[in-house]
Amino acid sequence: MAISQIPEIETPIKTLASDNAAGTHPRILEALTACNPGHQMPYGADDYSKAAQAMFENLFGRRLGMFFAFNGTGANILALSGMLNRCDAVICAQTAHLVDDETGAPEAILGAKLVTVPTPDGKLTPELIRPCLAAKGNFHHAQPRVVAIAQLTEVGTLYTPDEVRALGGFCHENGLYLFMDGARLSNAVTSLNVPVKSVTSDAGVDVLVFGGTKNGCAFGEAVLVFNPELEARYPVLRKGAGQLASKMRYIAAQFLCYVGEGIYLENARRANAAAQRLAQGLEKMEGVSILYPVQGNEIFLTMPESWIEPLQSFMYFNVMGQGMCRLVTSFDITDEDVDDFLNWAQVQAQGE
Amino acid sequence: MAISQIPEIETPIKTLASDNAAGTHPRILEALTACNPGHQMPYGADDYSKAAQAMFENLFGRRLGMFFAFNGTGANILALSGMLNRCDAVICAQTAHLVDDETGAPEAILGAKLVTVPTPDGKLTPELIRPCLAAKGNFHHAQPRVVAIAQLTEVGTLYTPDEVRALGGFCHENGLYLFMDGARLSNAVTSLNVPVKSVTSDAGVDVLVFGGTKNGCAFGEAVLVFNPELEARYPVLRKGAGQLASKMRYIAAQFLCYVGEGIYLENARRANAAAQRLAQGLEKMEGVSILYPVQGNEIFLTMPESWIEPLQSFMYFNVMGQGMCRLVTSFDITDEDVDDFLNWAQVQAQGE
Amino acid sequence: MAISQIPEIETPIKTLASDNAAGTHPRILEALTACNPGHQMPYGADDYSKAAQAMFENLFGRRLGMFFAFNGTGANILALSGMLNRCDAVICAQTAHLVDDETGAPEAILGAKLVTVPTPDGKLTPELIRPCLAAKGNFHHAQPRVVAIAQLTEVGTLYTPDEVRALGGFCHENGLYLFMDGARLSNAVTSLNVPVKSVTSDAGVDVLVFGGTKNGCAFGEAVLVFNPELEARYPVLRKGAGQLASKMRYIAAQFLCYVGEGIYLENARRANAAAQRLAQGLEKMEGVSILYPVQGNEIFLTMPESWIEPLQSFMYFNVMGQGMCRLVTSFDITDEDVDDFLNWAQVQAQGE
Amino acid sequence: MAISQIPEIETPIKTLASDNAAGTHPRILEALTACNPGHQMPYGADDYSKAAQAMFENLFGRRLGMFFAFNGTGANILALSGMLNRCDAVICAQTAHLVDDETGAPEAILGAKLVTVPTPDGKLTPELIRPCLAAKGNFHHAQPRVVAIAQLTEVGTLYTPDEVRALGGFCHENGLYLFMDGARLSNAVTSLNVPVKSVTSDAGVDVLVFGGTKNGCAFGEAVLVFNPELEARYPVLRKGAGQLASKMRYIAAQFLCYVGEGIYLENARRANAAAQRLAQGLEKMEGVSILYPVQGNEIFLTMPESWIEPLQSFMYFNVMGQGMCRLVTSFDITDEDVDDFLNWAQVQAQGE
Repeated sequence: MAISQIPEIETPIKTLASDNAAGTHPRILEALTACNPGHQMPYGADDYSKAAQAMFENLFGRRLGMFFAFNGTGANILALSGMLNRCDAVICAQTAHLVDDETGAPEAILGAKLVTVPTPDGKLTPELIRPCLAAKGNFHHAQPRVVAIAQLTEVGTLYTPDEVRALGGFCHENGLYLFMDGARLSNAVTSLNVPVKSVTSDAGVDVLVFGGTKNGCAFGEAVLVFNPELEARYPVLRKGAGQLASKMRYIAAQFLCYVGEGIYLENARRANAAAQRLAQGLEKMEGVSILYPVQGNEIFLTMPESWIEPLQSFMYFNVMGQGMCRLVTSFDITDEDVDDFLNWAQVQAQGE
Repeated sequence: MAISQIPEIETPIKTLASDNAAGTHPRILEALTACNPGHQMPYGADDYSKAAQAMFENLFGRRLGMFFAFNGTGANILALSGMLNRCDAVICAQTAHLVDDETGAPEAILGAKLVTVPTPDGKLTPELIRPCLAAKGNFHHAQPRVVAIAQLTEVGTLYTPDEVRALGGFCHENGLYLFMDGARLSNAVTSLNVPVKSVTSDAGVDVLVFGGTKNGCAFGEAVLVFNPELEARYPVLRKGAGQLASKMRYIAAQFLCYVGEGIYLENARRANAAAQRLAQGLEKMEGVSILYPVQGNEIFLTMPESWIEPLQSFMYFNVMGQGMCRLVTSFDITDEDVDDFLNWAQVQAQGE
Repeated sequence: MAISQIPEIETPIKTLASDNAAGTHPRILEALTACNPGHQMPYGADDYSKAAQAMFENLFGRRLGMFFAFNGTGANILALSGMLNRCDAVICAQTAHLVDDETGAPEAILGAKLVTVPTPDGKLTPELIRPCLAAKGNFHHAQPRVVAIAQLTEVGTLYTPDEVRALGGFCHENGLYLFMDGARLSNAVTSLNVPVKSVTSDAGVDVLVFGGTKNGCAFGEAVLVFNPELEARYPVLRKGAGQLASKMRYIAAQFLCYVGEGIYLENARRANAAAQRLAQGLEKMEGVSILYPVQGNEIFLTMPESWIEPLQSFMYFNVMGQGMCRLVTSFDITDEDVDDFLNWAQVQAQGE
Repeated sequence: MAISQIPEIETPIKTLASDNAAGTHPRILEALTACNPGHQMPYGADDYSKAAQAMFENLFGRRLGMFFAFNGTGANILALSGMLNRCDAVICAQTAHLVDDETGAPEAILGAKLVTVPTPDGKLTPELIRPCLAAKGNFHHAQPRVVAIAQLTEVGTLYTPDEVRALGGFCHENGLYLFMDGARLSNAVTSLNVPVKSVTSDAGVDVLVFGGTKNGCAFGEAVLVFNPELEARYPVLRKGAGQLASKMRYIAAQFLCYVGEGIYLENARRANAAAQRLAQGLEKMEGVSILYPVQGNEIFLTMPESWIEPLQSFMYFNVMGQGMCRLVTSFDITDEDVDDFLNWAQVQAQGE
């Protein structure tokens, strides 16, 4: 880089710690650059946002409300804020990102009560949720209002269209909204080989976060409001949540490319394939135990104790507590990257 | 643009409605692009963020806490969150952006009480603030904790180093923190021809938002914490405010260029010069009254009623209520752009 | 008192500092005592609460939602909580208790934005409110949702039925709710000599706090919800605001006596008469200036500087800032009490 | 009752559903009445509050901060509000009242994150808490700040002095505060036959709610702050939480009698004895299973399905979900009351 103040930074090795470690897909970066010339009305009144609205309506085959946010926490908070009243509860899996990985933002910003449900595989079902309904109409309890699911879940599993549809039906029969945090939605639909709408709008999701950052964007998530009764308050809520980009074109242009050009599927396909290759290599090794089905780009496993320290020294993966580790494959992880890791592991395993 | 899904968008005329309408300075965009290759640790542990930290410490000649946020509202909320306890009050000018233009975010997110003080020129002084101190120690009132000022103010005026120093001294004598929203800080220091630190850290500012977006960045503001007692909680507060960029490099790289290469001054100089040229042209015209000293890139004025409708039809400016209009010059407004506007106005004026 | 641990406390002189300094009307205390025997279902399911519901419906000649709260701040917060969404604004007089005297509770508990309007006499009018409507539909601003008035106002004036009706009509035409903090409602209706409903439910008030404590109860305020669309969420909101009395009978029984036996009017009549006698005596004295019409039991005045120190030494009155003092007559202030004060003042005045 | 508007309400049968169903102990009611004559300074500046402060300091043998609140939820919220910063977490047993029975008030009012820990018996231990410490210093997680325990726990068990001391030590070694919700503290210390301070201030509790209402007061709980660093902000926080009684004497006088006269122990002894008698009778019956040790005045049990409907028809007990029922003995439950219940149950049991 010629810019004098920016140090010559050596590209570090690729990590399997997070799909936020990868950069931006080159074509998305090109789109972000291409929208730069000239003035555009700020705060979402730009031409790129209008085009993105049309693109999303085309993708889902229906009218929707589109509200870009900056990042995952921001998008989740914004999404929830339009569904919740004071003293309402959000029903989540005990493993949910909302519960454990957002620094208490749902509580601190929204005052929301999170009601947690243990699950075998990170996935809520109507049966698991049903006992929470006992609180409805009882003023001693926060009132269940939203069921929040993540696609992929926080243990790397996915919801099929039938499973989402079952939840959507259950929610609407019981006066609840269904919210999907789709940070890794693209990985799920790629695995399922179904259109996005089949696990979201067509399956009863009221509000969706369509993830961008983890799958090749620089920043930006799309909050999509399918329930028309909910849409009207989101413009106010977004500004009031600190999630309104003044120069919105730089998010909109990324999504025009990311979704419009099909990169969301292309990137997810690569990341999922890398995760499969990695899982297949690992599961044969002594001392490795893969804990959940690998259905996207995440592997949750236990591994030999002796691997942990050398791997963590360069932040290769995340320790999730209780001996569980997580490996995540970004869209730019190649077969060679996977094989490098497997070879390293093989050597470790033999050394024991 | 070759990307098929992105429509051929005609560059609209330049507007004087907002400095958020301009794009990104080309060199900043280049820096954003240049940091893309390879993996970087997410959430601010990347190499660009480390370099930005060093750069800011160099600029201010001291240790500081650096916390990038996405946008102005987010940065202000984050900055305030580290200074406020429950039931605390923020003392603001009645015209403050915090009070009127952030959709109630300080209240909704932080639960903060904003105590407003009328001012002649958008600027707080120790004398204006002093009566608010009566609430201290009286449990019937929210407790004054922060004095919040904006540089430029919301009517386009600026605080001199002496004026900030007077506020800083007053605050610290009275157990208050001094917060500066520096969304247009660059415009102020350019006008003053002083180093940034002389109106901020050296003058007693405890926490500063160093604005990027309005002055040529694509997105991103830097919350700089000068008071060492306050710094420790900001990492948690940032994630919990939805302001933690996962791929932080894209903000850090912009600031490495924007600040490190001096573009913050270069852009502000252009914007301020355009505002001066515009103000000088306007003030000679019949029916125009400039309401506050033009000390940066904003002009607040009343103009002939007949101008308003044609100008607003292409969103040329903002009506602020009560007949007051605002014109803002972005960094990319040229002499020719100004003269085009003045010529148009001249024709309007003669037609009356 | 025979109870050993309770010290023999000398009854202090009566004060004009607050109508919270008086005790409880003997008949209300008797009612509180009379409800004691036996078990009653907790949390408002007791027989006394049922009777109070019927009593209030009878008084107002209509169905309503009745939600007792513990104190004024609690009742106001509860009342507002049912009307506000996230990022909504409450329009208040600049002098409002909500703004200045509740320690930021509306912001801290509800996240509500209070938009303040200067008034000549503590009273809002449609004309004064109208400019606030400009924020409606503009996502940069908190959305006006509630107009909050106090009866008596915070400067001791009152709203006539016509004035409330004008506000009610204006609110409902503009999608706003009208909230009345009736901490001294009884004093107002006594002065006006009109039924309570004529300045409340019949005049368009959506939610009312019917004050008890300041006018002779031991504790307890009644939040009355006239707008049937709003009622359903109040049971949940009350528990969630920390305002649900477990042994509700002790509030309900007080109100059964206070309202049902007409003590609210009887007490207000005495307090108002004392205020009139006091005001008439004071206004003749040199150096005294009564600042607002005395329409209830409060007098706002400036008085000779030399009176302030001796009077404040036994907390005889409140200094409100900027030289303004407040005298408040409780229901138990007699002619003799007033004359004692006037005599003292006369002596002071002559001594000068 | 002579008061015409108050209906002649038949005393209903005594219930075992809640200790909030009982009335007020006659001597406490007498104390509440006895403090009525004359004026007293409002908001806690009354003579009774001063005497109560001295009384509590005498009881605990040390300086403390005393802040009366109205009810249990209010007291808990107030207590926590002085210990928590933004994005902090409270560690609770999964069965905690705070988690499940306060309508989300900790989240809605305080924005607090509740981190729940499964326990075998409703009781936290250092070992159970330790894994939660992993979040400390990791900005992706709400920061553990308070360990909240209830005495009695929510399943009727109690903490011994040693157990509290172990928690207190653990908390203070790890930068946490220890909070005790002592809604049924009196029942615990009666069972333990130890002074109150041995399970609270002397054992490392930083802030205590000393319960009144459930054990014979009409209303009112005392928040006692033992940690001197925490005390200063409580006066502001109490007003801002809607928990500041204007006529504070009516709470203070109750506590002067309740604590000063030893009624807290006397009532708890009666209630505990009734619970023992009841448990001993029940545990012999077919189909009854007592689920937790009966250490105070609460019995958690499963009972024959056929009992539930007739018992619930007059709200004799609470169904807690999953087949678990709760019986609570108030201070006024006599041997005869217990035997009546047991006889009824016997008849039911034989009828099967």
